[in-house]
Amino acid sequence: MSDTQTDIQRLHVAARYSEAAVFNGVVYLAGMVPECEATDIRSQTADVLRQIDVRLAECNSDKSRILRTQIFLRDIADIAAMNEVWDAWVAAGHAPPRATVQAALADPGWCIEVVVTAAVRG
Amino acid sequence: MSDTQTDIQRLHVAARYSEAAVFNGVVYLAGMVPECEATDIRSQTADVLRQIDVRLAECNSDKSRILRTQIFLRDIADIAAMNEVWDAWVAAGHAPPRATVQAALADPGWCIEVVVTAAVRG
Amino acid sequence: MSDTQTDIQRLHVAARYSEAAVFNGVVYLAGMVPECEATDIRSQTADVLRQIDVRLAECNSDKSRILRTQIFLRDIADIAAMNEVWDAWVAAGHAPPRATVQAALADPGWCIEVVVTAAVRG
Repeated sequence: MSDTQTDIQRLHVAARYSEAAVFNGVVYLAGMVPECEATDIRSQTADVLRQIDVRLAECNSDKSRILRTQIFLRDIADIAAMNEVWDAWVAAGHAPPRATVQAALADPGWCIEVVVTAAVRG
Repeated sequence: MSDTQTDIQRLHVAARYSEAAVFNGVVYLAGMVPECEATDIRSQTADVLRQIDVRLAECNSDKSRILRTQIFLRDIADIAAMNEVWDAWVAAGHAPPRATVQAALADPGWCIEVVVTAAVRG
Repeated sequence: MSDTQTDIQRLHVAARYSEAAVFNGVVYLAGMVPECEATDIRSQTADVLRQIDVRLAECNSDKSRILRTQIFLRDIADIAAMNEVWDAWVAAGHAPPRATVQAALADPGWCIEVVVTAAVRG
């Protein structure tokens, strides 16, 4: 490939997708989905948020610098339980804009998928 | 908290989420949902678009500077009625890229949720 | 209209929406949907990806510079077939962050809608 992409950093590039892209100070994470074996919304949310912490750290960012969070829930009725875990995780004073809707996900065992856009540390 | 976030402006920061974040000249609004008591798609759309006008103005932007609009409808069959209200609102000559899909929303009374990304005035 | 929008380039501006907006080196495409008459997921995916190539080229970008792809499938069970077409298309070494969820789309004949954010060539 050409090297015209040197201004875009990609993390964990696989054949189908990568986990993150960084351009012009903004981090675009892939949709984060549960990697744990737990099947409940609370455990899966905690697992996804933990992955987001890891991915943002790899991109020189963190949860206090999130610009937007799009949350997809398999069952929108899970929102209250998801919010419990979210509220304990979110950076106080830096809660990001958020949108939460219901959508069936790629694996029927997943309750949640979260798409984060964040700012790199200045 | 650290002051490393001074390059990110957040509006109406609550414990769970904020209404907007501004970074590098781009405004990221939260998903806007109806605040009115009306239950029909036209009234709810008008209410959501009015809120977007208010939020964008707070961020030194406006509807002529929208970069993308993601629209979620509880019932995709509402798209024609939503479009009527949208068409009367959109800034002529500056209609933004848009995507509209169906999704159940957090409150079963909501017909519509709209996520806007916009440019701050130069 | 005022000329305060000269820092935003819009492509194929219609009354309701435009096909792309470019600001600060980032391309925001509209949700791309099938224009072909085919009804199967493979043909529709190929058609949508072809349109993305065209739109990105118009914006001085290309598929090696995608920052995020949001894919909506009418039936999430189509993901394997969609992935076959995607895998053959994606720029090797530059696969973007991606999120794929199920959602009913504006036309019941559409199997897929794809929303792309990309970087302009530096």
